[in-house]
Amino acid sequence: MDPQDLLRGLHTKNDSKIVLLVGDGLGGLPQQPGGKTELETAATPNLDKLAKEGVLGSSIPVFPGISPGSGPGHLGLFGYDPIKYLIGRGALEATGIGFELQPGDVAIRANFCTLDADGKISDRRAGRIPTEESAPLAIKLREVSIPGIELFVEPVKEHRFVIVLRGEGLEDDVDDTDPQATGVPPLTPTANTPGSKKTAEVCREFLKQAFELLKDEKKANGCTLRGIAAKPSLPSYEEVYGLKAAAIAVYPMYKGLARLVGMDIVGDAKTLDEQMEVLKENWDKYDFFFIHFKYTDSTGEDGNFEAKTKRTEELDTCVPKIMELGPAVFICTGDHSTPAMLASHSWHPVPTLLWAENCRTDPCEAFGEAECLKGGLGQFEAKFLMSLALANAGRLGKFGA
Amino acid sequence: MDPQDLLRGLHTKNDSKIVLLVGDGLGGLPQQPGGKTELETAATPNLDKLAKEGVLGSSIPVFPGISPGSGPGHLGLFGYDPIKYLIGRGALEATGIGFELQPGDVAIRANFCTLDADGKISDRRAGRIPTEESAPLAIKLREVSIPGIELFVEPVKEHRFVIVLRGEGLEDDVDDTDPQATGVPPLTPTANTPGSKKTAEVCREFLKQAFELLKDEKKANGCTLRGIAAKPSLPSYEEVYGLKAAAIAVYPMYKGLARLVGMDIVGDAKTLDEQMEVLKENWDKYDFFFIHFKYTDSTGEDGNFEAKTKRTEELDTCVPKIMELGPAVFICTGDHSTPAMLASHSWHPVPTLLWAENCRTDPCEAFGEAECLKGGLGQFEAKFLMSLALANAGRLGKFGA
Repeated sequence: MDPQDLLRGLHTKNDSKIVLLVGDGLGGLPQQPGGKTELETAATPNLDKLAKEGVLGSSIPVFPGISPGSGPGHLGLFGYDPIKYLIGRGALEATGIGFELQPGDVAIRANFCTLDADGKISDRRAGRIPTEESAPLAIKLREVSIPGIELFVEPVKEHRFVIVLRGEGLEDDVDDTDPQATGVPPLTPTANTPGSKKTAEVCREFLKQAFELLKDEKKANGCTLRGIAAKPSLPSYEEVYGLKAAAIAVYPMYKGLARLVGMDIVGDAKTLDEQMEVLKENWDKYDFFFIHFKYTDSTGEDGNFEAKTKRTEELDTCVPKIMELGPAVFICTGDHSTPAMLASHSWHPVPTLLWAENCRTDPCEAFGEAECLKGGLGQFEAKFLMSLALANAGRLGKFGA
Repeated sequence: MDPQDLLRGLHTKNDSKIVLLVGDGLGGLPQQPGGKTELETAATPNLDKLAKEGVLGSSIPVFPGISPGSGPGHLGLFGYDPIKYLIGRGALEATGIGFELQPGDVAIRANFCTLDADGKISDRRAGRIPTEESAPLAIKLREVSIPGIELFVEPVKEHRFVIVLRGEGLEDDVDDTDPQATGVPPLTPTANTPGSKKTAEVCREFLKQAFELLKDEKKANGCTLRGIAAKPSLPSYEEVYGLKAAAIAVYPMYKGLARLVGMDIVGDAKTLDEQMEVLKENWDKYDFFFIHFKYTDSTGEDGNFEAKTKRTEELDTCVPKIMELGPAVFICTGDHSTPAMLASHSWHPVPTLLWAENCRTDPCEAFGEAECLKGGLGQFEAKFLMSLALANAGRLGKFGA
């Protein structure tokens, strides 16, 4: 069931503001059974106060047991069924480096590799070539020229780069050319559908010219293509929710995900304090604000419990600055859990706080995973967060008479 | 997922009785955060006793954030996916005044309006003409005669009346004729599909004759047609659950909704006490009883917290009379929340009590929204209430071997 099918016909307008504060990877695990998680360990007086006044619950990003990447994690929070709306890997990689995909574009993750004298792959990652060496090579590949195609080649990191193809009639159902093995040559780009034949041809021509340009390199004398993906077509926040939405993020990936759902990217903040400034400056111009905080995830990924706890406390300090602007609805949650104990994204439900005047408060006293189990929102699929936000903002009409 | 797809093949027969007591709009909100709701404030010793012995939970009528009307609210409780089974506005209006729609009927909500000398609408509601004046005009419109069509015109209230078309080959995809504006003429009935062409023609002929009959009226010299809708086709309680079901309701709307799912309307009770008499009289004749109590909703709609609390206490007094008849399963819930604080239907989950011998009781001590958060039924979509009822009545076979 796609909630947007219903919401499209129910949303109404008013002057309310909705703020969605995302602590990336917010959910965690205790260091020993029965202990406290990062969020429970952190001193978060501002979020705790709102937890008392508001309503808590546990958000399930996709379905129980599924650990989402940043793409499905955020799509879920934005109310887009993360199983229905898939963002191909190439499109996500391009989005992640801030490349603004246009409708019809096909994006490709590419890896430099090492080929032996017989053209067989001897190293699938070109010896993990450092970025200082790989970036100039990626830029050199911009010399490739294919009639009728506008070509973009963007360095990423180490052996990785991104290719974007722009032109008429490019569909994206083309297989990877990485054979996932050494001692064999790269695969030939092959179309799985008639509509993607042209894309496969362009890929073959790209590789032909690229191999020629790279032939004298020692490490990176070849490359493979992966995750060949068109720009996903997502309905916009304006259309499905009637919301003029702004994203205030520091990292390109999250700006890119927000752009895919039609949010405006506002400001150029580098810190949480600067993000709060941008929020204040834009308060009158938008209905909805997505504020992204990366460091609860990156410290979790590093397996650093103390650092994640400290970053959670940092997140808490921005809350009064948001509340003094007077949002009708304030939500704090994460796109998934990133427990420091696992040093990775996980499948655990994500603590969620919703504050609004008529939210039907619950007995919860503080913001944390255990308290959320007692919360009035129960356990719910992330894709329903936006209907809750709209309802609490008085922005949804009645369904049926 | 439609639970009925599975239940159709699983239900079995026994002598058990199931009672569904619906306090319309039962769920509420406290008057201040952390306070008690209407249900929590009310003295409900009988429901509290059953809450201790039974199992509680919170029912979500449609999905999180959605405030349903009476139609989808009740369909959900009856186990019909309220998104799959939509009742058109005309059909609901006809149902609401007690008109018994037959398969193939097309029902229309109509408004008297005022037309100026150029045939343009000067008042879309005919100056909110009082019912004493409008009802005779609706009855006068019964003079309209269209070959091959049986026509029913029923007064409703003020400027509103209902038209039902009965005949062969009438489909309902015809646009409203209310332009939702003044200073323009009514729109012409237009079919959106080949199958609804005849309905559009009949509507045009109806309007032609009606305008002639009304032409000398000062206020109501025209009318518009809205919500043109066929009788919805719903599978019956007998078919999907194997239940012979009776509805004991006071208001026509709820009798009508029950009739749509194949319940018999029994008795002619005007009070809750009379409803209890009807229940007792019919106890041996049916497997399932739907008892509807309106006043928890109407007092909520009035924004009257104290009155809703009192009406909730009134609802509680009927419980011993039900229990002494010995139902196998007793359920008390609402079709949605109507918090007096909002004076409208809302999206908040609905407190639900299920009592049965083998229901696996939970730690809940009383019937109320906060207690329900600790309940053994958790938060669940209303459409699953009937499978729970059948299971607890021993009326469902095992699924799979």
